[in-house]
Amino acid sequence: MNHFFKIPFTWIITTSVLPQVRTTFNQNFRGISQICGNLEPRSWNSMEGLVRCPANYVPLSPITFLERSAKVYRDRTSVVYGTVKYTWRETYERCLRLASALTQLGISRGDVVATLAPNVPAMYELHFGVPMAGALICTLNTRLDSAMISVLLKHSEAKVIFVDHELLEIAWEALGLLTKRKSKIPILVVISESDGSLTSSSTTAFDKEAYVYENLLSKGDVKFEVRKPENELDSISINYTSGTTSEPKGVVYSHRGAYLNSLATVLLHGIGAMPVYLWTVPMFHCNGWCLIWGNAAQGGTNICLRRVRPKAIFDSIALHKVTHMGGAPTVLNMIVNSSTSDRKPLPSKVEVMTGGAPPPPQILHKMEELGFSVSHLYGLTETYGPGTICQWRPEWNSLPPEERYRLKSRQGVQHLGLEEVDVRDPVTLESVPDDGKTMGEVMFRGNTVMSGYHKNPRATEEAFRGGWFQSGDLAVKHSDGYFEVKDRSKDIVISGGENISTIEVETVLYSHPAVLEAAVVGRPDNHWGQTPCAFVKLKEGFQADAEEIIKFCRDHLPHYMAPRTVVFEDLPRTSTGKIQKFILREKAKAMGSLF
Amino acid sequence: MNHFFKIPFTWIITTSVLPQVRTTFNQNFRGISQICGNLEPRSWNSMEGLVRCPANYVPLSPITFLERSAKVYRDRTSVVYGTVKYTWRETYERCLRLASALTQLGISRGDVVATLAPNVPAMYELHFGVPMAGALICTLNTRLDSAMISVLLKHSEAKVIFVDHELLEIAWEALGLLTKRKSKIPILVVISESDGSLTSSSTTAFDKEAYVYENLLSKGDVKFEVRKPENELDSISINYTSGTTSEPKGVVYSHRGAYLNSLATVLLHGIGAMPVYLWTVPMFHCNGWCLIWGNAAQGGTNICLRRVRPKAIFDSIALHKVTHMGGAPTVLNMIVNSSTSDRKPLPSKVEVMTGGAPPPPQILHKMEELGFSVSHLYGLTETYGPGTICQWRPEWNSLPPEERYRLKSRQGVQHLGLEEVDVRDPVTLESVPDDGKTMGEVMFRGNTVMSGYHKNPRATEEAFRGGWFQSGDLAVKHSDGYFEVKDRSKDIVISGGENISTIEVETVLYSHPAVLEAAVVGRPDNHWGQTPCAFVKLKEGFQADAEEIIKFCRDHLPHYMAPRTVVFEDLPRTSTGKIQKFILREKAKAMGSLF
Repeated sequence: MNHFFKIPFTWIITTSVLPQVRTTFNQNFRGISQICGNLEPRSWNSMEGLVRCPANYVPLSPITFLERSAKVYRDRTSVVYGTVKYTWRETYERCLRLASALTQLGISRGDVVATLAPNVPAMYELHFGVPMAGALICTLNTRLDSAMISVLLKHSEAKVIFVDHELLEIAWEALGLLTKRKSKIPILVVISESDGSLTSSSTTAFDKEAYVYENLLSKGDVKFEVRKPENELDSISINYTSGTTSEPKGVVYSHRGAYLNSLATVLLHGIGAMPVYLWTVPMFHCNGWCLIWGNAAQGGTNICLRRVRPKAIFDSIALHKVTHMGGAPTVLNMIVNSSTSDRKPLPSKVEVMTGGAPPPPQILHKMEELGFSVSHLYGLTETYGPGTICQWRPEWNSLPPEERYRLKSRQGVQHLGLEEVDVRDPVTLESVPDDGKTMGEVMFRGNTVMSGYHKNPRATEEAFRGGWFQSGDLAVKHSDGYFEVKDRSKDIVISGGENISTIEVETVLYSHPAVLEAAVVGRPDNHWGQTPCAFVKLKEGFQADAEEIIKFCRDHLPHYMAPRTVVFEDLPRTSTGKIQKFILREKAKAMGSLF
Repeated sequence: MNHFFKIPFTWIITTSVLPQVRTTFNQNFRGISQICGNLEPRSWNSMEGLVRCPANYVPLSPITFLERSAKVYRDRTSVVYGTVKYTWRETYERCLRLASALTQLGISRGDVVATLAPNVPAMYELHFGVPMAGALICTLNTRLDSAMISVLLKHSEAKVIFVDHELLEIAWEALGLLTKRKSKIPILVVISESDGSLTSSSTTAFDKEAYVYENLLSKGDVKFEVRKPENELDSISINYTSGTTSEPKGVVYSHRGAYLNSLATVLLHGIGAMPVYLWTVPMFHCNGWCLIWGNAAQGGTNICLRRVRPKAIFDSIALHKVTHMGGAPTVLNMIVNSSTSDRKPLPSKVEVMTGGAPPPPQILHKMEELGFSVSHLYGLTETYGPGTICQWRPEWNSLPPEERYRLKSRQGVQHLGLEEVDVRDPVTLESVPDDGKTMGEVMFRGNTVMSGYHKNPRATEEAFRGGWFQSGDLAVKHSDGYFEVKDRSKDIVISGGENISTIEVETVLYSHPAVLEAAVVGRPDNHWGQTPCAFVKLKEGFQADAEEIIKFCRDHLPHYMAPRTVVFEDLPRTSTGKIQKFILREKAKAMGSLF
């Protein structure tokens, strides 16, 4: 193991080893140029006869994709939601109306517009309509509680919030909390069902002051002059990190980055012209991994799903002939463990992007059996979602299944939008050898890395130290150049001086026939420092006790890596399907030392 | 017909109607901002917490594609030429050596390096190696004569020229002309066959001073530090227009535009990961329609062909399982008229991009029969090659063949890299109605429009008047939003006040069973102003006289559109397959008035 693991975590507080950095932390924000280089590249020295003018220079923006699709694909279906269907021309016109209506509500360039909604057509439209009004879209996670929503509304200074009728109560509570604290209250717009219907609880909103989405649109002007970004680095969205830690940060995307990551993701996933895309990834998550914009680029049909359930997934695939979809392994897990009565045969191969956690072999195997073709990608909110892909090599098709799944569980190589993704020593920033053993931190550099954390220069500065975005994920590099994430830096368990990848332990746990879900964290230990502690949820109708689980792990892993403790319970997850290990760590801590 | 055709050509000399423009013509170059808007967009006003730094901002450049493929696809075949094969890692290393060797020859940032070579591996490598040395690549048309080559070398101020061993004599003559005129002589590098062999004539070069490509590479340093562009608007290449007019202009591309057009062309052509691309488009033409870079982005295999001949095409397709290729209709014509002994069955569907001229229905039909799938794209050297595509709609598949071919011969809609392509009135710049009748000029706006004409501010200014690149192509817009080019503005024939699209007349001529090639120009006429004059080449073994051809046209066209004169002869073409109408116009002029 690499030297820096001998002194665990000191490198995370890098300021302690870099006096220069510590100084700038206490200075104002301009200090960042000392750490990550010049902010402005050399300006363009034109040769004679050359110019930069509106004929040959346009700020990159995904708004262009919609404008183009409204022309190229104008009568093709853009969005489907139950019985609701729009064409690209209609979607474009609705977005123009929306942008116009927002300016009527007082929205100016640089203002923030929040959303709290599942994957309904309005969410799709807001991703264009808000930027077309010159504003930033801030998509709140639909599983947050009212307290957190009020915190994020305050932090983002959102001037308007669009709320799905089913989530109105929680939004209303959040606004109540803001009132109590004498904070500014955003204007509330209720997204009704497309037929105009609302849930009963949401009607209370109309006793108070609120707009209704469809009414608002009808007042918008279809001839609205779009407020294109004046500079392509202007911000397009804020994504608050989903909270695997307890401190959410507002990750800001630019028009340029959104344009480039949309195209890179389309290419990475092999999305040709006119795909049929099923929305099983939350649109609020990294703006739907940038595919809200990417599908507009390719004139795709967006199948919206309010609730991601196996029956709805299989029904949608059969009905609409879905070609592409995405989802965290937890969504794949739901699909492969669905009851046969919920299933339908796939009309043809469905390409599935998975990411957020490495897909366990069992899930890959069962997905293949069902007719899905799974690609594994990797990225963070800070990299606009997808940043790397385990680019599949045709020669791997002839390998035995276990070997194929092992290869596919790796995070792979950077996509086309990034300049470089590498595994580097977090202290020296030197590239680690490609020996499959030496751990380092995954680092990103390129145009699809966030502009920074909203109103948090200190966090931005720390994330970009040395001119690299430092992901906090620990990985090894293999001899074929593909890297493999072993753990989050804060998740790794260190027992008797040895690093234990919780991902490796979890992979073994998932291969146990009775295990539905598993997560491993460190339990404090007076002797070893930490020991691995497994939280496990069993499949319905299956049984297993701690002893059996531990024995199974010891049969498949070096003994020091096997859990010493197994707890059976439901696992706490973020709405994007990530297990909230900080909650489990708290529980393990509360247990105290094992010996 | 639109009003501006009533006063033919006055609008081409637009300065005569825009006093403001005329003034700036006589002033210095800064005057251009008055015509096409501000040169610099607003600089970025960062919000608190956001930065632009090397972690999240990298100038866009196709060099990135090669660096990435050297990692992602490193052991896959990059380039094939006869028995020569390289992997992506090898190609990358060869390009590093080449860039290093260029700096050893004294090449600095912004210098120009010329090439005179067919589609051999060195041409592929030069497209990366030259920019990696910070220089511009200027790819000369291999069919130019020594006089024109000397003019272009002088104009471009090329410091080095790479010459294929078969073209050495003509290059040597060109350098001789430069010596006579006491101009600076570029350093000569001879590209031998990859086995080191040279044609006999080329050995004379070694009596004089010259380098050999492979020797030069062997002296380059594989650890060369790449000179990335400091600003993404820095120039990457100069493409001299191929001379459908007699005045070639140096069209300059930027790293940004090359990056964006590469991706747009990859997406437009549906080029997935790891394609097998057959080089039937000259690499010197718009840098191979940007697919030299685009294939690197997708880790494709580049099959190089020194000579584009039907047998070599069919052999390569069968041997390498070609997936994609491109070519002007003249290449398609060569394929469909090939002898059966030259043909081989296609192992699977081959996607063919055609452009440069609308593909005649007969050719589309025969290409389909042979198993090719043809897409029609359109663009100009000034738009980095491909700029629009006749985006195929699945519902058109069920139409009768004639209808399908008629739809496909249209130039279509803009690709993803452009902001807008429209048909506009050349005087008022107003969009023409989509009635399929009103003619206007095709105009482009977006990031894949050239930086300008090298050392020709006046021509740049004129091309970008009003913030649009004005193509000089006349077209109509159809009700489905697709546009159709009717003629080059200078090619249109005006007879008795009526506009005659020479393309329409040529389409009828091509449908005559005896006609192999046809071109129509205006012949001066004392009564009508002009009358259509057809130049025709007959198929081998076929016979037809002028009377029969004229009758055939009158049977298929309004009488005023039918040619009054038919000349049987070989048609003069540029090396990219375009018919040189200016030569034919001279001939027609020399004939004098018909009546």
